[in-house]
Amino acid sequence: MPEPPDMLSKVLALAKRRGFLWPSYEIYGGVAGFYDYGPLGAQLKASVEELWRRNYVAGEGFAELAAPAISPEPVFKASGHLEKFSDIMVECAKCGEPFRADLLLKELFPDEAPPATLEATARILKERNVRCPNDKSALSEPFPFNLMFRTNIGPGTKRAGYLRPETAQAMFLDFGLLYRFFREKLPFGAVQVGRGYRNEIAPRQGIIRLREFNMAEAEVFVDPEKKGKHPRFSEVAGMKLHLVPNEGPETDLTLGEAVTKGVMAHESIAYFVGVTARIMLEAGVDPARLRFRQHAKDEMAHYAADCWDAETRLSFGWTECVGVADRTCYDLEAHMKASGQDLRAFVRYEKPETVEKTVVAPNHAVLGPRFKKDAKAVAKALESIEACTVEGRDFVEVDVDGKKVRVDRDCFTVKKTTETVSGRWFTPHVIEPSYGIDRMIYSVLEHAYFETKKEGEDYFVLRLRPQMAPIQVAVFPLLNKDELVVVSETINRQLRAAGLRTYSEAADSIGRRYARMDEVGTPFCVTVDFDTLKDGTVTIRDRDSTKQVRVPSADMVAAIGELIDGKRAIG
Amino acid sequence: MPEPPDMLSKVLALAKRRGFLWPSYEIYGGVAGFYDYGPLGAQLKASVEELWRRNYVAGEGFAELAAPAISPEPVFKASGHLEKFSDIMVECAKCGEPFRADLLLKELFPDEAPPATLEATARILKERNVRCPNDKSALSEPFPFNLMFRTNIGPGTKRAGYLRPETAQAMFLDFGLLYRFFREKLPFGAVQVGRGYRNEIAPRQGIIRLREFNMAEAEVFVDPEKKGKHPRFSEVAGMKLHLVPNEGPETDLTLGEAVTKGVMAHESIAYFVGVTARIMLEAGVDPARLRFRQHAKDEMAHYAADCWDAETRLSFGWTECVGVADRTCYDLEAHMKASGQDLRAFVRYEKPETVEKTVVAPNHAVLGPRFKKDAKAVAKALESIEACTVEGRDFVEVDVDGKKVRVDRDCFTVKKTTETVSGRWFTPHVIEPSYGIDRMIYSVLEHAYFETKKEGEDYFVLRLRPQMAPIQVAVFPLLNKDELVVVSETINRQLRAAGLRTYSEAADSIGRRYARMDEVGTPFCVTVDFDTLKDGTVTIRDRDSTKQVRVPSADMVAAIGELIDGKRAIG
Repeated sequence: MPEPPDMLSKVLALAKRRGFLWPSYEIYGGVAGFYDYGPLGAQLKASVEELWRRNYVAGEGFAELAAPAISPEPVFKASGHLEKFSDIMVECAKCGEPFRADLLLKELFPDEAPPATLEATARILKERNVRCPNDKSALSEPFPFNLMFRTNIGPGTKRAGYLRPETAQAMFLDFGLLYRFFREKLPFGAVQVGRGYRNEIAPRQGIIRLREFNMAEAEVFVDPEKKGKHPRFSEVAGMKLHLVPNEGPETDLTLGEAVTKGVMAHESIAYFVGVTARIMLEAGVDPARLRFRQHAKDEMAHYAADCWDAETRLSFGWTECVGVADRTCYDLEAHMKASGQDLRAFVRYEKPETVEKTVVAPNHAVLGPRFKKDAKAVAKALESIEACTVEGRDFVEVDVDGKKVRVDRDCFTVKKTTETVSGRWFTPHVIEPSYGIDRMIYSVLEHAYFETKKEGEDYFVLRLRPQMAPIQVAVFPLLNKDELVVVSETINRQLRAAGLRTYSEAADSIGRRYARMDEVGTPFCVTVDFDTLKDGTVTIRDRDSTKQVRVPSADMVAAIGELIDGKRAIG
Repeated sequence: MPEPPDMLSKVLALAKRRGFLWPSYEIYGGVAGFYDYGPLGAQLKASVEELWRRNYVAGEGFAELAAPAISPEPVFKASGHLEKFSDIMVECAKCGEPFRADLLLKELFPDEAPPATLEATARILKERNVRCPNDKSALSEPFPFNLMFRTNIGPGTKRAGYLRPETAQAMFLDFGLLYRFFREKLPFGAVQVGRGYRNEIAPRQGIIRLREFNMAEAEVFVDPEKKGKHPRFSEVAGMKLHLVPNEGPETDLTLGEAVTKGVMAHESIAYFVGVTARIMLEAGVDPARLRFRQHAKDEMAHYAADCWDAETRLSFGWTECVGVADRTCYDLEAHMKASGQDLRAFVRYEKPETVEKTVVAPNHAVLGPRFKKDAKAVAKALESIEACTVEGRDFVEVDVDGKKVRVDRDCFTVKKTTETVSGRWFTPHVIEPSYGIDRMIYSVLEHAYFETKKEGEDYFVLRLRPQMAPIQVAVFPLLNKDELVVVSETINRQLRAAGLRTYSEAADSIGRRYARMDEVGTPFCVTVDFDTLKDGTVTIRDRDSTKQVRVPSADMVAAIGELIDGKRAIG
């Protein structure tokens, strides 16, 4: 007997059947990791993006940019993606099928944490004698596979280009232009809403792990000396969330408590965690299936000093949808170094001031014995490091006579000193809320999905929030009769003029039409019947209670508006 | 003496200085063919796209899709792009610089039409002894260069992927799913707004010829027997436009006249030409610098039977911004053939009917002498061709015993016959309005650009339409004094609450602030001065007349609304 379809398959089946989402290129057999948004899905995506912009562009006053997805190699050389944005891979020596080593090991040994390095992966594969799951043949040695899509810009192969794995880099490259646009005042934010690319080795799970995905990112440039406080923190301080810190137990805390207790490093991270929770709940994520988890130290992306993920509980487990990261000065420093351009900010004081400065101070007592004759050079190299770059790191690498030397954390301290200056030059820090739009959309669909029986048949309802539903109101003549159709067309126009997303259809029984609207998540249906012609009233049907009320046509638009805003309810 | 900067340079300089547009990757020396939209440019782009969606999605009821940019090879093999989407190129044998052959010849021999084929290009280059413009060295033989960006999907190089040169293909691939979504009724339309890619050999002219560009395309699927008429044609029939047909003189005609006189093939093309004119004028294109030009037969893209371009006159010449093409059944037929899937539509008749059918009829009198023993096989092959595929073509290629045979137009006729059927299967035709968003935006900027002198200094004004301006109202306290700033903040909030895009700034002289607003195209400035504190009035300044009026604060929001909608004027 075949297994019953799992929740993922059922949600994707509805999504395809009703025009939300379907695998791309199906007429040519499909390509894993690519999905099309159909008419209703693209509308849902537009609503989620509009909600995002309402918060980040209108709400925060951040500037939206639109930069290309293709970028030349120097960008990703500097950002670290060329070296570090990769998965460890093995191939079957016989059938040639590629596997992600961590996923293969996780399937075979579900209770063990997959190895983090190439060496550890090679050792475990060998020790356990792991073979190809298809044909039991030997596997290749593991090797790193860079996850960026590569292409050539212009004719020939001289100029490599890569499809951006994140939209963030353009905001860092443009920092100087943005800084001038904002009249040289911090903090400011820049955002992009657009495509990101990740050449997954073995993509799965519908739109959860796509090779071409939709993202919305904000890069907030802040003065590192001021990031501890956020001017609007009070707006979210009372919000209680389920938190999973990387040390200590899971806990329900308000964001205010999280900062006070040191569970979250500072108000800037906590503020955007709060904004993220607000957006996700408004989009329709179930609050009982939302948590914020802090990255473990060895799990963090190469550029991040701290990161909290918004995760939703889906049928296949907790899934990252949003990351709120403190990227410190990592990216701006990296691009300054690689390009030779100045990407710093300056604050001029009213008059010269004695200021505190955070510096890296060599610990000579430890350096001497450890580095012997090089100790002086190492100390000098340490002094030239910006203090922000060592934040959250266990060691640093410095150049000594052209050689890279690893210097552990006990060799230096980060301390405050004072000096007199006319102003302050600094590399801004970046707080980055980064949203996976596709994952948010899938979470909303799965959390809204309900399945029942009606007269022995499967019956499906998508309980989308009325603000987010692709169709907010359907207008139906009870029967396909001219006199009813004419009235329903008038009502449809009134609702559209009020800015609502509507749908109208006269064919088929009214029950079938209601059922289709339940399945696409339409919260309200207005029906025109013969009483409408007599007394001017229409019925409004509520999707979730399936109850109906009669209202005078003249009150209908206002009533629907109140129902959508949750100021009124049926049943 | 250096030449004075041309208009293009001046517009791009303003665009960069004020945060509309700047070359991408400048800190790494830049890469030709890539531009970033800065904060104001991205807002202008969003307004143009919103205007487009208002017409095509809300107005026409078309469905918006969002499909990936990366597509697997079979898509472009079927669509013809793999074979035909290329430019002819030569390289310098010494310095290695690549040139587009047609542009190189046009520069050297501006009065001659560049050759259309590879052979003709080779001949002319040789005859004229064309050499490298840089170092006078010999050039390579000309060769075709495919303009799609190529990449690999997944690890290894087994699976080629290409970045889409147009968004259209996804709508063709999804035809079956869309047809079901629209409950199997034609006509319907699908649209995409997103990135397109074209790996130009030598991109120039700012955002006119980009390697990654923004486009908005609609694919309207119609019953070929009904495309002559369009149900909403009367809405545009009276619109008078400047037309440049591919035969006969340039002429000013209404769209109604254009169809009646046979200048335009049918109402479906003419209707979308009208919609296009309306959108371009609303966006801010100067009506005196807009024309519609029909493609010459040998200029048409490989999929089009007819095409009218909306062109704007820019400082460097007439420039294509939009193409309205009749793609006939070309694309759906091509994908049906390559995929083996059925992408046809069906109309069932109430009762069996005798219907007219357009068929390809072999002309046996010509075939016999020309093809001798193959004449019968050629005739049979001709009979199996869909009549729509030969529309507008001078010859067709047919398969005879596995060989391709060219059959000229005099070997067959297209004629109507009758048969009795229960319904009608057909391959829909596609009418495609395809918009280059970047070119529209550049046209709007150049047409809005004015330069004067003020107190001996250069002074710049962008006369953007108030609906399109990135900032619609600026709110300024006359001086940076708390009592004025507080009032101007209140006014700013009122204007934002009314849905307007505003800006506020207290620093600098009021003249400097007005000048900056003129330069970014802000149509109105509201100024709060000491009279405001006394009598509650504010001034509203008009960008184009520079005149000011005083209005009571209570009337200010309404007054600004009327000014933006053109229902009121200052000066």
